[in-house]
Amino acid sequence: METDTNSPQTQSPHPRLLRTLPDLRELMSALRAQGNRVGLVPTMGALHAGHLSLAKKSCRNCDATVVTIFVNPTQFAPNEDLDKYPRTLTRDLELLGELGVPYVFAPTEATIYPDGFSTFVQPPDVAGSLEGSSRPDHFRGVATIVLKLFQLIPADIAYFGQKDYQQCLVIRRMVEDLAVPIEIDVCPIVREPDGLAMSSRNRYLTAEERQQATAISRALQQASALADQGESQAEVLREAMRLDLAQAGISRIEYVEVADADTLRPLERIEGPAVALIAAFVGKTRLIDNWLLQ
Amino acid sequence: METDTNSPQTQSPHPRLLRTLPDLRELMSALRAQGNRVGLVPTMGALHAGHLSLAKKSCRNCDATVVTIFVNPTQFAPNEDLDKYPRTLTRDLELLGELGVPYVFAPTEATIYPDGFSTFVQPPDVAGSLEGSSRPDHFRGVATIVLKLFQLIPADIAYFGQKDYQQCLVIRRMVEDLAVPIEIDVCPIVREPDGLAMSSRNRYLTAEERQQATAISRALQQASALADQGESQAEVLREAMRLDLAQAGISRIEYVEVADADTLRPLERIEGPAVALIAAFVGKTRLIDNWLLQ
Repeated sequence: METDTNSPQTQSPHPRLLRTLPDLRELMSALRAQGNRVGLVPTMGALHAGHLSLAKKSCRNCDATVVTIFVNPTQFAPNEDLDKYPRTLTRDLELLGELGVPYVFAPTEATIYPDGFSTFVQPPDVAGSLEGSSRPDHFRGVATIVLKLFQLIPADIAYFGQKDYQQCLVIRRMVEDLAVPIEIDVCPIVREPDGLAMSSRNRYLTAEERQQATAISRALQQASALADQGESQAEVLREAMRLDLAQAGISRIEYVEVADADTLRPLERIEGPAVALIAAFVGKTRLIDNWLLQ
Repeated sequence: METDTNSPQTQSPHPRLLRTLPDLRELMSALRAQGNRVGLVPTMGALHAGHLSLAKKSCRNCDATVVTIFVNPTQFAPNEDLDKYPRTLTRDLELLGELGVPYVFAPTEATIYPDGFSTFVQPPDVAGSLEGSSRPDHFRGVATIVLKLFQLIPADIAYFGQKDYQQCLVIRRMVEDLAVPIEIDVCPIVREPDGLAMSSRNRYLTAEERQQATAISRALQQASALADQGESQAEVLREAMRLDLAQAGISRIEYVEVADADTLRPLERIEGPAVALIAAFVGKTRLIDNWLLQ
């Protein structure tokens, strides 16, 4: 059939882009009325292979997938990178189109936070340490936008990346505490070949910083290896990670922790499920990563 | 048919009483699958004619009505009347049965607030004054339980009484801010023949206090009459109400306010929709009431 030269490989349809609440509500009503299983992938855009792994899983397991793209201002402190956070909507839509994602919701700030908006979710206790210490109102903003997205998009399941480990615990506990009727699926961290965890902020790094940044995942992997070899003193693992970072010239460390995998309480001895977590600046870029310890 | 002597008048069926989340979820799935319009009436029990007016309206306008009965501990301060708050479940079920309410959800405290519960709703700005000043964490508790009930019972519409005027504004704003998919219907205050607003706490009053308490609604009605006569100075109305209360011997006043009907900001001049509100102790019992000014 020579008149039809478009194969699915050469031209992927873009997802349908929804911008307003009425459009979104109409879509959700239709999807629910048809009895679809709906998957939700909340993102701040600037999509990388980590995000795409979530979207792929949703497309595989659900009848309809909604990816949201919204750089949520309430989770950034005034001194943080809200203004320079990468916004790449056109490219994001192409990438999602290639995966066959049918719907993208990308609201404006005024749509999500209209005049007079003043209700927030006070996140659960697990939000208090680590990222919550470094970024005091961060999880309040995260919990609020995620709860609002869960109201706007009554999906069956929502996909999050383990890269934001504490965020996943905050969301799981919020959903449980408030009985939000949605399943939370936490998916594995996607890494560059050299181990660096995928992050939209990696594009801030210079070539030299990019090289330096690999020390973070190396330190975590090293801690995991020590634990595998039977080292149960958490401070030994923390000290080893600090040394790895120092040797790579990473000096501005926000935390290096070995904590209970569920509560994030710092451990003395590793006796059950645990997680190693790092937050550190490489140049001016704040990076986080984590590794489950068995 | 002499073998069937039970008429609906002589024996009303009790509502079905649900105690657990699995039972509730099963019911809600069935109701939604059948396409029912569901009405929700959240209460703390000790039902009076005010509550019953909400349940009646829900039964009239919805296919299925769920009344919840839960004395919510997080909205009481340690010095308040949580322990002595009246609990009259058997009588409540009888009253709801007489109205034909089909479902009552009355969970235990551990069902709503399991171990480790720590997520709360930080209520909107309108929660800050009046009751929010007198009872600092009250609206945090109210917003949290109401949001959780809205997640557990995905109703089309929820009914609240105007008696808790500020609470209604808090809930409306929360629902708007967080995009909770439910309609809020605020229903008129039901009063005793002498004007006293119905309240579960009225049963705390001695005969003498019961008489004294009527001064609250008289003061509000008086303020409304003054406004109707063209008095637009809010302080004149407040002063008149304070005098009414003083003359009745009510001296422990928490607030006497004339405020914007939407924002609850105190007014100097009445130029649009306004509301007069009183909170005062009669004996040891704290009573509230309000009156819309046209």
